[in-house]
Amino acid sequence: MNEKIIELIEEKKFSQLKEELNEMISVDIAELIDELDKKNSIIVFRLLSKDHAAEVFSYLSSAQQKDIVGAMHETKMKEILEELYFDDMIDFLEEMPANVVKKILKASTEEERKLINQFLNYPENSAGSLMTIEYVDLKKEMSVKEALSHIKKIGVDKETIYTCYVLNDKRKLEGIVSLRKLVLMEDDLLISDIMNEDVITTQTIDDQEEIASLFKKYDLITLPVVDKEGRLVGIITIDDIVDVIERENTEDFQKMAAMEPNDEEYLETGIFSLARKRIIWLLVLMVSATFTGSIISRFEDVLSTVVILATFIPMLMDTAGNAGSQSSTLVIRGMALGEIAINDYLKVFWKELRVSVVVGVALGIINFGRMLLLTKAGIPIAFTVSFTLFLTIVMAKVVGGTLPMLAKKLKLDPAIMAGPLITTIVDAMALIVYFNIASLLLGLV
Amino acid sequence: MNEKIIELIEEKKFSQLKEELNEMISVDIAELIDELDKKNSIIVFRLLSKDHAAEVFSYLSSAQQKDIVGAMHETKMKEILEELYFDDMIDFLEEMPANVVKKILKASTEEERKLINQFLNYPENSAGSLMTIEYVDLKKEMSVKEALSHIKKIGVDKETIYTCYVLNDKRKLEGIVSLRKLVLMEDDLLISDIMNEDVITTQTIDDQEEIASLFKKYDLITLPVVDKEGRLVGIITIDDIVDVIERENTEDFQKMAAMEPNDEEYLETGIFSLARKRIIWLLVLMVSATFTGSIISRFEDVLSTVVILATFIPMLMDTAGNAGSQSSTLVIRGMALGEIAINDYLKVFWKELRVSVVVGVALGIINFGRMLLLTKAGIPIAFTVSFTLFLTIVMAKVVGGTLPMLAKKLKLDPAIMAGPLITTIVDAMALIVYFNIASLLLGLV
Repeated sequence: MNEKIIELIEEKKFSQLKEELNEMISVDIAELIDELDKKNSIIVFRLLSKDHAAEVFSYLSSAQQKDIVGAMHETKMKEILEELYFDDMIDFLEEMPANVVKKILKASTEEERKLINQFLNYPENSAGSLMTIEYVDLKKEMSVKEALSHIKKIGVDKETIYTCYVLNDKRKLEGIVSLRKLVLMEDDLLISDIMNEDVITTQTIDDQEEIASLFKKYDLITLPVVDKEGRLVGIITIDDIVDVIERENTEDFQKMAAMEPNDEEYLETGIFSLARKRIIWLLVLMVSATFTGSIISRFEDVLSTVVILATFIPMLMDTAGNAGSQSSTLVIRGMALGEIAINDYLKVFWKELRVSVVVGVALGIINFGRMLLLTKAGIPIAFTVSFTLFLTIVMAKVVGGTLPMLAKKLKLDPAIMAGPLITTIVDAMALIVYFNIASLLLGLV
Repeated sequence: MNEKIIELIEEKKFSQLKEELNEMISVDIAELIDELDKKNSIIVFRLLSKDHAAEVFSYLSSAQQKDIVGAMHETKMKEILEELYFDDMIDFLEEMPANVVKKILKASTEEERKLINQFLNYPENSAGSLMTIEYVDLKKEMSVKEALSHIKKIGVDKETIYTCYVLNDKRKLEGIVSLRKLVLMEDDLLISDIMNEDVITTQTIDDQEEIASLFKKYDLITLPVVDKEGRLVGIITIDDIVDVIERENTEDFQKMAAMEPNDEEYLETGIFSLARKRIIWLLVLMVSATFTGSIISRFEDVLSTVVILATFIPMLMDTAGNAGSQSSTLVIRGMALGEIAINDYLKVFWKELRVSVVVGVALGIINFGRMLLLTKAGIPIAFTVSFTLFLTIVMAKVVGGTLPMLAKKLKLDPAIMAGPLITTIVDAMALIVYFNIASLLLGLV
């Protein structure tokens, strides 16, 4: 498909190209533009119809949007921006340099300008930054028939018409009616008779993570956003929430792998920006690992007497880290999905304790057998290592399971505070246990 | 809220309880039942109206569903099951023991039985297992007005009426029309004039992960499922996809933390089941870590000469593991979201190489200064450790960034093949580099 388009560009067959483009879905055109160089992507964009162009524009990355804004004539650009849904326009403006924003604000009406400024001021990741203002509003005195003809008149510019919002004269939200109900109900019923007054709402400053939970819990398609006085200021739609869910998951993956979160795409992020996101946690963990090292130096005598003990340090440390991050991952994920609550603390502790005993005994026995059969370590050393392994797994799992809950209790982010630190903490514990048991059992003190 | 309900149950004020329940949202009732004991949850369930009961039932866990099925009268149960949407009913049947399924099948008509059996046979995680059959079908000869009155007649039992499917006499999918279009367009237009023929579809056996990507890419609300002949067999709705996305993410989290994936909730999974999911990978990684240990034993001479070298093993191993998993997490996540493709291999390699040099130089210098100022290690040892640290970070990041892509190229799951193994691999590399550099620089060979 794309080869054909590229051929048409190269052969400058623009009228045929235009025809092909008009039959394509906007997302696919955006993907095509992503593969083209700057010059050709502008050629393609110019050939799109106004509606199509706006839709394609909303799917482009901000770098590409910037290129296109730079290359297009100002009035043509304004036409396209006017076709954008309000939330897409705000997303675009947020990424543009100040001079572009200023130019666009200058070309807007007083009222638009006020609205744009208001939206640009909502904190990132808040309901305000996700919402759009293109919704259908109804009055409760309307009949179903009147409501449907009202929708027919104003619906074409709305992002969704499937949920309609019933507002009073002060724009206070009194209820919602789904288009489904309007279509299925008799024409002469009143909106006040069929509207649902038990509306789940959110406020402009609420965090996107909580909002995503509401969508998941109640299987919502849209969610109204109200101000402190209960007036409707915008709505959030499920397509933006799907993106939020993936972004939040990406953040959790990054935090749990000891990085500061970054919502740019990997291939589009610069070297120094990537490096900066990684250095801080590596540094913190490096310094804390030197404490682990200092444990070894305290036991240097033991180590120099029985050098073979050093051979098992990597295995003990790795297993401790893995066992701990298994537990912490399950608990962090369970809390993120709302399956585990803070007051399940004792349940988690008791569960991890029992699981870790099962896992620890199994691995301890296997390791003991393996060391006796396959290495030259005698029974005392094999026992020392295997018993340490058992204790380490139990400690790692109990700490790994409960530390994230402690972090949450202290209002710290479990993913960032517990994820990367678990390995370091359980490593240190593993070594302390190891050398103490070795000193005792091998009579090295 | 729930305290009040529990009070009403205890005081046996059932008519008041019934009133309270009828005003609650189904999800919230399901949550309430989750907190009650078996006896009280059945009392609550019995007080629900038929429609309400079906909805609440679809939100319960399969253990609770089983309890309720056991306690309810057969005919009452059949009524509720008939109210369930078809996909919720199949989800329920999939979890029930064979005798319950048999009883339900016996009470169904021949036609229903055939359909249920067909759906129960779709592979888990396939489009077939996600879809529902309650959709609105239209004919292309209908006018908008006819279509709307058809929807009014049949729409009330459909899971969604917002997308309608245009079928020919052989039930082949010819196009789709959104309810939005039907409501906004003139009454006398024909469906064939306004329907969209460019329909994105999926097949019954397609995997849920691909389907979720289609929803994300095209911002879909529903997706039609067709058989090989292009006949419509069902539709998938966004609320089920949101669950799929979270389930897939949970699986990735689990795999990357060295566990076999498990889609039960943590608190509801048994001890042995949890232990089993964790033991296998711990064992694999434990055995591979012993190879890391054998590296140390090969350098026992070096180590017994300069015992202080052992002190830095934890720091080098931890930093290697962290640096590697930072890179592998970014790349695995990027591939899962479709931001990084297999043929970006060289780009990723080149990017990780440069990032790792920046990070490695920074951490190396900081570590060198720290060792000179804060420890008793002299310049040769400080240099050995810092230079190893630099090389280790570079190797860890390059391997961490490219190994997941190699796994994908070999059709292995990057999350499971690359995630847990990275630490073990880079640990071994770190130690080899460390002891070789130490031998060379400190003249210990």
